[in-house]
Amino acid sequence: MHKVFTIETQGPGLYEITREVEGFVAASRAEEALLTLFVRHTSASLAIQENADPDVRTDLAAFFHRLVPPSDDPAMGYIRHTSEGPDDMPAHIKAALLPVSLTIPIISGRMMLGTWQGIYLFEHRSSRHRREIVAVAR
Amino acid sequence: MHKVFTIETQGPGLYEITREVEGFVAASRAEEALLTLFVRHTSASLAIQENADPDVRTDLAAFFHRLVPPSDDPAMGYIRHTSEGPDDMPAHIKAALLPVSLTIPIISGRMMLGTWQGIYLFEHRSSRHRREIVAVAR
Amino acid sequence: MHKVFTIETQGPGLYEITREVEGFVAASRAEEALLTLFVRHTSASLAIQENADPDVRTDLAAFFHRLVPPSDDPAMGYIRHTSEGPDDMPAHIKAALLPVSLTIPIISGRMMLGTWQGIYLFEHRSSRHRREIVAVAR
Repeated sequence: MHKVFTIETQGPGLYEITREVEGFVAASRAEEALLTLFVRHTSASLAIQENADPDVRTDLAAFFHRLVPPSDDPAMGYIRHTSEGPDDMPAHIKAALLPVSLTIPIISGRMMLGTWQGIYLFEHRSSRHRREIVAVAR
Repeated sequence: MHKVFTIETQGPGLYEITREVEGFVAASRAEEALLTLFVRHTSASLAIQENADPDVRTDLAAFFHRLVPPSDDPAMGYIRHTSEGPDDMPAHIKAALLPVSLTIPIISGRMMLGTWQGIYLFEHRSSRHRREIVAVAR
Repeated sequence: MHKVFTIETQGPGLYEITREVEGFVAASRAEEALLTLFVRHTSASLAIQENADPDVRTDLAAFFHRLVPPSDDPAMGYIRHTSEGPDDMPAHIKAALLPVSLTIPIISGRMMLGTWQGIYLFEHRSSRHRREIVAVAR
């Protein structure tokens, strides 16, 4: 069983999808299985992160913005792929650094997430985007 | 078939679990299958790394400590999530950068690890922790 | 069904394997399944990246070369594992930062890659290497 999730993003940061994925797992009636998530883009990622303090997500996005600044930043003067905007090549780099696929065990019908683990789409582009994540329970 | 491994950690660094995982794969009697590992935390990761020279693990931990310093380091002055200690938010960042899940093919009853590949839990927190990794052979 | 792909590399950078993997998926006759890729090395990685502008791959390799310079660079003075050459320990670090395994859903017999997603081996070593990637459709 599979489902394609569509997430409308409005700028960089983490968008939680834990509830939607839990709903999919419940609907799949999978008992002992694996949940696979796959993001169909090269400028957005998946993340499993703390779902308690929202500052964690802010700090995460801030760290990655500093690690991979926009390509019009002097530190990124060696970047060639600038034609799609200063946030495009950094988005590809972040998409290499962060997961494109995740596999989560399902046991007795539930994902084995830890207490503090939430599932997120991590958007790297500045403008609005429509993102697709494929979920498979199998 | 699944198993939850518990690993007691005593500070940051890599803890090898290759033998334990091999034992699980043998006990599962899986012949042609996939082994999935999933760490149930947002401040520890998985890693597959060289299992020969222990300096490799020391260097790896040192690199990540420099890439993501404690939040009381001046370079991390923008960090907001500091209430759980200076090693907490860096641990979340490292947990985003490093794998939370891994999938290793099992062929003819054995994991297809390369000659130098060992499986590790990568602890990011300073104090003692009890970590859980879910293993599934399927 | 599984296959081991062998890729001859000639220095650092991204080597596209999308066509070869598509051929394997077609030959497997898998309709609703998961494709798993696993690289059997600790100094090379997998990547899913933009397959349009080749500058993206050049920029990616350049970013990682700056993030993790050779171990004879003054910035890497703390590195101990230098006996296998200045490109060896940085290769292990990049192998921790980038994926060792990837899972891609197969639906109606085709991988659910997005329009711009290509599959690559990311070589981190300077000299020629023979790399193995295990593919499983299941």
